[in-house]
Amino acid sequence: MSKQALPLMDPVCCAPLAQEPIGAEDAAVLAKAFKAVGDPIRLRLLSLIASRDGETCVCDLTGPFEVSGPTISHHLKVLREAGLIDCERRGTWVYYWSRPEALQRLSAILGQQVTRV
Amino acid sequence: MSKQALPLMDPVCCAPLAQEPIGAEDAAVLAKAFKAVGDPIRLRLLSLIASRDGETCVCDLTGPFEVSGPTISHHLKVLREAGLIDCERRGTWVYYWSRPEALQRLSAILGQQVTRV
Repeated sequence: MSKQALPLMDPVCCAPLAQEPIGAEDAAVLAKAFKAVGDPIRLRLLSLIASRDGETCVCDLTGPFEVSGPTISHHLKVLREAGLIDCERRGTWVYYWSRPEALQRLSAILGQQVTRV
Repeated sequence: MSKQALPLMDPVCCAPLAQEPIGAEDAAVLAKAFKAVGDPIRLRLLSLIASRDGETCVCDLTGPFEVSGPTISHHLKVLREAGLIDCERRGTWVYYWSRPEALQRLSAILGQQVTRV
């Protein structure tokens, strides 16, 4: 499966949103990532994956949710396309891991607000 | 207009998502906030408001976008209901300001990933 870095991974993107107005192109990329975590199930999936040490088998991700396997797969795909997780198929199962650098980037864009309070 | 703090503002909510799995209730609240910034126009509006010193007149928020005034108003309402901005009507215009503590909270939930790289 693709491990291609999304534009979000571009180290020059982006300054904290409270530092200067975000441009339209950057906003489009970032909004996609924020929209990915803008769903309760995806947020919980991301948290489950990110809070594990190492990889998480997809077989361990369906249990906590009252939705179908294909729905979980769809949500995982959205998270992956947003650059927040990545995965690899090995044998029967797909294994997922988070991309901390992407989460950190999103965190930094929302953060650094303290001095403006 | 309401200045009621949303559950997001609860200081006990929430641990960084990579620290422990987010619960369903917290995920619902947080996902609403992330969804609010999961739209390019809303993200740019938030950035415009947050990057200003002090308040921003709604009259200064419609110019940069090729969408109608009512559409801008709708997006501002979504941001306000998510607890990310607040506003006050004075005379003809409504004035908006960001809520840095809410942005900082969202930032903290996504952040603190570095030690897990």
